Amino acid sequence: MTDLEKHQRMANAIRFLAVDAVEQAKSGHPGLPMGTADIATVLFTEFLKFDPTAPYWADRDRFVLSAGHGSMLLYSLLYLLGYEDFSLEELKNFRQLGARTAGHPEFGHGAGIETTTGPLGQGLGNAVGMAIAERLQAERFGTELVDHYTYVLAGDGCLMEGISQEALTLAGHLKLNKLIVIWDDNGISIDGRVDLTDSTDQQARFAASGWNTLTVDGHDPNSIAAAIRQAQASDKPTLIAAKTTIGFGAPTKAGTQKVHGAPLGAEEIAGTREALNWPHEPFEIPSDVLDAWRIAGLQSAHAHKDWQKRFADADAELRAEFERRNRGDLPAAFTQAVLDYKKQLAEDQPTMASRKASEAVLGVINEVIPETIGGSADLTGSNNTKTAQTAAVTPTDFSGRYIHWGIREHGMAAAMNGMALHGGLIPYSGGFLIFSDYCRPSLRLAALMGQRVIHVMTHDSIGLGEDGPTHQPVEHFAALRAIPNMVFFRPADITETLECWQLALEHKDGPSILALTRQNLPSVRKTYEEQNLCSKGAYALIDSDDEAAVTLFASGSEVEIAVEAHAELKEAGISARVISVPSFELFELQSEDYKNAVIGTSPVKIAVEAGIRMGWDRFIGNDGLFVGMSGFGASAPYKELYEHFGITKEAVVSAVKEKLGA
Amino acid sequence: MTDLEKHQRMANAIRFLAVDAVEQAKSGHPGLPMGTADIATVLFTEFLKFDPTAPYWADRDRFVLSAGHGSMLLYSLLYLLGYEDFSLEELKNFRQLGARTAGHPEFGHGAGIETTTGPLGQGLGNAVGMAIAERLQAERFGTELVDHYTYVLAGDGCLMEGISQEALTLAGHLKLNKLIVIWDDNGISIDGRVDLTDSTDQQARFAASGWNTLTVDGHDPNSIAAAIRQAQASDKPTLIAAKTTIGFGAPTKAGTQKVHGAPLGAEEIAGTREALNWPHEPFEIPSDVLDAWRIAGLQSAHAHKDWQKRFADADAELRAEFERRNRGDLPAAFTQAVLDYKKQLAEDQPTMASRKASEAVLGVINEVIPETIGGSADLTGSNNTKTAQTAAVTPTDFSGRYIHWGIREHGMAAAMNGMALHGGLIPYSGGFLIFSDYCRPSLRLAALMGQRVIHVMTHDSIGLGEDGPTHQPVEHFAALRAIPNMVFFRPADITETLECWQLALEHKDGPSILALTRQNLPSVRKTYEEQNLCSKGAYALIDSDDEAAVTLFASGSEVEIAVEAHAELKEAGISARVISVPSFELFELQSEDYKNAVIGTSPVKIAVEAGIRMGWDRFIGNDGLFVGMSGFGASAPYKELYEHFGITKEAVVSAVKEKLGA
Repeated sequence: MTDLEKHQRMANAIRFLAVDAVEQAKSGHPGLPMGTADIATVLFTEFLKFDPTAPYWADRDRFVLSAGHGSMLLYSLLYLLGYEDFSLEELKNFRQLGARTAGHPEFGHGAGIETTTGPLGQGLGNAVGMAIAERLQAERFGTELVDHYTYVLAGDGCLMEGISQEALTLAGHLKLNKLIVIWDDNGISIDGRVDLTDSTDQQARFAASGWNTLTVDGHDPNSIAAAIRQAQASDKPTLIAAKTTIGFGAPTKAGTQKVHGAPLGAEEIAGTREALNWPHEPFEIPSDVLDAWRIAGLQSAHAHKDWQKRFADADAELRAEFERRNRGDLPAAFTQAVLDYKKQLAEDQPTMASRKASEAVLGVINEVIPETIGGSADLTGSNNTKTAQTAAVTPTDFSGRYIHWGIREHGMAAAMNGMALHGGLIPYSGGFLIFSDYCRPSLRLAALMGQRVIHVMTHDSIGLGEDGPTHQPVEHFAALRAIPNMVFFRPADITETLECWQLALEHKDGPSILALTRQNLPSVRKTYEEQNLCSKGAYALIDSDDEAAVTLFASGSEVEIAVEAHAELKEAGISARVISVPSFELFELQSEDYKNAVIGTSPVKIAVEAGIRMGWDRFIGNDGLFVGMSGFGASAPYKELYEHFGITKEAVVSAVKEKLGA
Repeated sequence: MTDLEKHQRMANAIRFLAVDAVEQAKSGHPGLPMGTADIATVLFTEFLKFDPTAPYWADRDRFVLSAGHGSMLLYSLLYLLGYEDFSLEELKNFRQLGARTAGHPEFGHGAGIETTTGPLGQGLGNAVGMAIAERLQAERFGTELVDHYTYVLAGDGCLMEGISQEALTLAGHLKLNKLIVIWDDNGISIDGRVDLTDSTDQQARFAASGWNTLTVDGHDPNSIAAAIRQAQASDKPTLIAAKTTIGFGAPTKAGTQKVHGAPLGAEEIAGTREALNWPHEPFEIPSDVLDAWRIAGLQSAHAHKDWQKRFADADAELRAEFERRNRGDLPAAFTQAVLDYKKQLAEDQPTMASRKASEAVLGVINEVIPETIGGSADLTGSNNTKTAQTAAVTPTDFSGRYIHWGIREHGMAAAMNGMALHGGLIPYSGGFLIFSDYCRPSLRLAALMGQRVIHVMTHDSIGLGEDGPTHQPVEHFAALRAIPNMVFFRPADITETLECWQLALEHKDGPSILALTRQNLPSVRKTYEEQNLCSKGAYALIDSDDEAAVTLFASGSEVEIAVEAHAELKEAGISARVISVPSFELFELQSEDYKNAVIGTSPVKIAVEAGIRMGWDRFIGNDGLFVGMSGFGASAPYKELYEHFGITKEAVVSAVKEKLGA
């Protein structure tokens, strides 16, 4: 058998596992695995550095299937290479309940899946983050320990999504030369030929942003290998445009959209078996082919063994630090630093915007947690995410800890997911809360993947004032609280900001958002409490000895209003409590007893928040009072807006009194 | 005075109105108006076709300030040209409550503002839609009536946002040669120099997608004029890269980020006055300069008069149709067509997925409403948005009524906003509901601007099955219901789908979303009702004669479950009602009496929806029962998923019985 024949048999193993699994599931996408099997075979057997027996090895190359609908390509590879989590049984259960082999690759379903993909373009964004992480870690721990490539397989859809532009311009600017994107240039999308909707010269587009670009026949293993070699040698990120035939081998459907997202059907499959000379039963891989793949898997482990030797030779302290960061554990000194600062704040009682509070808190955090990587989407001076410890990362210097992401919220969030997935770093961003909409798909994926990324989102309400309704979040608190497995924090003062930051950092298995004000806030926390009160999600900031007539719930900047209303009600002889609600999600995690106690039994419950009511009925009931927004904001100085929209102490007191008939 | 001096004085009038208004407001962005005043002067005095006395004239050129933070540029122009809505008083009230001159241009605040901008890149997307609309309308009504350009002024931020890529590739593909984008190439963003974050050769990037590209000195009026002339003659859309100095004229801050987003301060302003030889008081425009601008405004009206003559000469029926469509009125035949079809459905009682139901309904709609323009983001066969009436639009043929938008949800939604703003068309899209996240910023702007765009979003829950959690909306119902001034519909069967489509089309002053299923649904509406029951937002699908023990609330595909549970409860002797809830928003618009009656007083209230609970407490109270999702979905055949997540008749009945102690 020639090398080419051997290659083709190995590639066909991928093709038929994909074809047969899709057929068995009666749904799925056979076209991409069939079209890119040659590329994947070359990449995984000749280039990719990995170890199926140690799939989490920190210095492995990363492979991202950005075109996630072609998931069977990845599952087939992982099975063939001997990844434990992907048995033949799993492949036969493709798209079935409880299987590791979901319709799209799901991070956490099995070792070997580097990221969750499917929403197009996200994988490309993740990969940029992984490549950034590699450069950052290599700078910190040396290339003896950190020196790997990030490979992406992307489809036309990935390149058409706007996020791809943010990702690629960032990669080009930062000269991420160890990022290699292979574009499955098959000219087909779901509606038909790509030229039905697009006329872009992708190579020219990537070149315009500083990429090396190559074009190959995606079915010629030698050309593919030569291109990857050239890409590896480049001082720029590389796009390899690989011309392929979608559904390669299918006698009547290859090269058409018919093979993209539906089973081939028995007849077409029989024809494909014939055309590719694959007279085997479904899911049957001839032993010579399986052996060849498994040997490739075993050989891949050599690089890991070499790395282990280098690691063993490294400085013990460096090793410990490397391992700590990769485990995601925080440094031991962190907790005490938080407490020390909290003590100081209880004495100082500063009045400041929570975005400025966050900056001060970050000064403490970044001093004791060296693995934080800050940044902002071109709003550094507004988000206050840059501290003395965080010099800027530049294309030629990755020793810094701050990324000027540019005006690329979506690319930033996707890249941060990639950084977190890569491991060893804790990325935090800066942006305006309104622009959470621009990066929402990536926020959702961070939640779905359970990744610790922290988004500092400032200018969190009409409190930003003059920029007006295009910039004023109204529905965003609700919309972000709606995303499962994400924690949305809205701290009321600097002490709460500190506590929320601590919780976000300690929340290892999911993303956090810190919604912060532009406008000044007084300290509402008056005494030092060792306990992190925000960890309960909601707590009595001001409690009442008796059965209070009124319970006032508020978050963030409106806690001040609740506190003021409390004082006025007290003067009027009306007993009230104030509940600060920094996080709905953490509150729901508390015991029923705790929750019932916090919500309490006051006859009047009222919530104050400069957003819409949605979600607050949980606290106040559907007959509760709400002082907040019911539509879009306006452009004016912020104090006038609070008056205009009636979010004031007076409005609260008057609503309460009316309800009480007082 | 030379022509150049006259030009400079006219441009300086813009500069100082901007400088002085920002200074007075103590906030705003002087840098862009100062930097682009020369461009704007040339464009508005030599090229732009408009009539300040008839600002809504249908065949005017459109000007989109995509870099919306530079709003004072637009307000200054509108004042100088004599637009009634923008008096000097308004300019003095820049960024103040109730003024037309909001921080960012707000559509509807005054005639002359073509679209709301500020969130970067959106204006570019709108402009692509406007240019598409122009081509579509020219095809339908002839170039005698429709023949105008769309001009955009975009900044670096617009070009860095991913949406810009979707917009520009679409424009290039469709050869929108009457779209002219002037890029304010000032090399500065908020964090500093653009080369801090980006190294893209924008001209090469645009050229890669079929654009004509030109480069000019943005302070040289002759070069600017020559470039615009070349752009007008091109058979492609044109990017004019205009090299400018941000904050032109400011002695120490020009060319730096310091002039981008903050008042200059008294000293710098004094220096600028000196540098530009402008010894006038704040807001004082010398009469020669104001006269020159006002004359330009008057001269511009000639084109309008010529057009009026051509319009008067046109066929009377054509004129009436042109005016009807531009008013946004639906054809008279529409209502009857809906009723006829509803009658037929009451007889046929078909079982079908609501996406297929929508296709059938669209067959009726598109027959009687010629101004609908359908489309899909590369999911035509899944969204079922293409009907017999809607041939595809191609780069060389705009007689069609269907746009293959490609994999560009964000660009699509922004362009649809532009089409609606342009007038004369009713755009509707197709996409997966999950990808509402990808276009959320444009959805929000449609709501803020009150534009009739209709988004068909299919595959609306775990009911899509095997594609898994990356594709299954869970939090999206809540997140979309949260956006003010948008109507989110989730119809339960084909009759409700018809009614919701009718409501969406009749909802002239805001966007609608139709969330539709992939899976089959039975007809739950059994009898013909002339009244549009969905118009109430929620209504009793099955009422009870007595005081029902149970009220079951449900939307969309879960109404079937509620109906089945009702039957089983009835058998068990438990009296229940079923409330179908196609739209929360429309329900809230009903009278308190109606709302109270629908919600009722059953001791047990239960909601069933394959999404999160958020929002439902409004109906069921915070002690109500909820059968739905509390986290992400999974990949499996959909019936198994409903079982797995416990969204079944059995679960409903058992929860009710437990609560009743039955």
